[in-house]
Amino acid sequence: LVPSFKITILGNGAASPTLERPPSSQIIELSGRYFLVDCGESIQLQLRKYKFSIQKIDHILITHLHGDHYLGLLGLLQSMHLLGRKSEINLYCQPELKEIIDLQNRISQTFLNFSIRYVFLEPEDKYLIFEDEKLRIYSFPLKHRIACNGFLLEEKPLPFTINKKKLDQYNIDVSQIHKLKKGMDVENEDGQRVSYQEVTTAPRATKSYAICSDTIYDEGLKTFINGVDVLYHESTFLNDMKERAKKTFHSTASQAAHIALLIHAKHLILGHFSARYGHLQAFADEAAGIFNNVSVAKEGEVYQI
Amino acid sequence: LVPSFKITILGNGAASPTLERPPSSQIIELSGRYFLVDCGESIQLQLRKYKFSIQKIDHILITHLHGDHYLGLLGLLQSMHLLGRKSEINLYCQPELKEIIDLQNRISQTFLNFSIRYVFLEPEDKYLIFEDEKLRIYSFPLKHRIACNGFLLEEKPLPFTINKKKLDQYNIDVSQIHKLKKGMDVENEDGQRVSYQEVTTAPRATKSYAICSDTIYDEGLKTFINGVDVLYHESTFLNDMKERAKKTFHSTASQAAHIALLIHAKHLILGHFSARYGHLQAFADEAAGIFNNVSVAKEGEVYQI
Repeated sequence: LVPSFKITILGNGAASPTLERPPSSQIIELSGRYFLVDCGESIQLQLRKYKFSIQKIDHILITHLHGDHYLGLLGLLQSMHLLGRKSEINLYCQPELKEIIDLQNRISQTFLNFSIRYVFLEPEDKYLIFEDEKLRIYSFPLKHRIACNGFLLEEKPLPFTINKKKLDQYNIDVSQIHKLKKGMDVENEDGQRVSYQEVTTAPRATKSYAICSDTIYDEGLKTFINGVDVLYHESTFLNDMKERAKKTFHSTASQAAHIALLIHAKHLILGHFSARYGHLQAFADEAAGIFNNVSVAKEGEVYQI
Repeated sequence: LVPSFKITILGNGAASPTLERPPSSQIIELSGRYFLVDCGESIQLQLRKYKFSIQKIDHILITHLHGDHYLGLLGLLQSMHLLGRKSEINLYCQPELKEIIDLQNRISQTFLNFSIRYVFLEPEDKYLIFEDEKLRIYSFPLKHRIACNGFLLEEKPLPFTINKKKLDQYNIDVSQIHKLKKGMDVENEDGQRVSYQEVTTAPRATKSYAICSDTIYDEGLKTFINGVDVLYHESTFLNDMKERAKKTFHSTASQAAHIALLIHAKHLILGHFSARYGHLQAFADEAAGIFNNVSVAKEGEVYQI
């Protein structure tokens, strides 16, 4: 089976970057489309380190405007410009980011050779923000200290595979293939109805992936991402810092696991770890007591869904 | 002899950062004071890598508002805050940087626990921007595409060393020591004039250091930094790209060497190298044909003046 989403973790840190833990960022590939989610300082170096061409990125999604999630964006846009980019970039963000970009480009007298198409995120409810023939992306609200959005990536239904021999056998014209690929019954050349199941094989199940970058423990997430295959959920703290997590609108590893359980996710990826914790094994252990398929995001790691 | 300035190169690149060449930045230490000059992206990682405590930095000087010279500043200030800083920081910069900082701190709802004392740089002429008992710092204009300033650091005259045995021998009261330390003659207990030269030894010569971060070839620099001991001068290009240097308001290695010669510097440090050049030896070679004491700034290198 061909995997759908390929997720590469570019950073797994929170707030202050360290040499060992760059700011949280990830890049998601699906059929040659690259979606960069969050853009902390040093994002250009991280993209170079893991061999991503910056010019192949056409979509940048920013969850919120805390520095560790966006401070690398301006430098990235300016490098795209310096290295000759002409094609439009799509930027999904809170509206204030446009102010931040415009002010700095004006002051530095940087006139980008490409346009930025802004898609402003809504502070409430779930909205479709991207759609093409393979994929839909939704934004939804996260509860953090400032406006913050999560993202849900859903693969669209894949085509049924046609059995060409059976097409002949059932006397079906090629003009009917597009219907069969969608799982619709057709009429053959003799005017008989043929079930798509007779002449096709079903595609693999579609996959989905949700990103909850910075959020307090929030059971309301079920409304937006129930049944998602893979859940990335922040886990800034361990349970020993539960009060601090609440105060700063972050989550602990066990809270993230509870959410994974609640929404019936199949796989939980933890990230956004506070620099106070030297090792990450404790995060995996704490969550594993509650949810049984947990990964700890490490820089450079790849998850194929 | 105790060295005066200790300069550590944190980055030597231009425009787009690469893994091998971080943006131009340096930190200068003099008697426990730390002056950070320019602050490109990843400055926090560079400071950690070379073991500088960010809280010891009380002075940040920004030459101009192109991204490779300031984009790391906001993250640095926010980390200083998160790590508990309370003491004021002095920021020497063009006034527009305050707008950039204020906008982003407002949007991210970051309320720094320390104050920023801004010293706005003037677009013309040479101005004293810092003075204490050991050091004076001046700003002066550089000719670049946008407003840009260089900095001149001058050690103040050092005290003459008192020969205590001779004080007794010449019957000089201790109350006269502060005059002798400054190289002034005094009157002894018997009412006789004593030359400072009889009872002191002269200090080493004071040292000076000038930074020309981004500039077109400009002989006018002589007005501001004539006779400086060490000149750091940008050298974005080699002579093969002389036209491009002119067009982008940058300099070549031989132009930097011509300036060093013109102002009678003793030592020239080249930096701010374009990513198009893989090796730096050609910069040293080109400049050495014109000026005989040339260094090529490498990341992590330390110069003691």
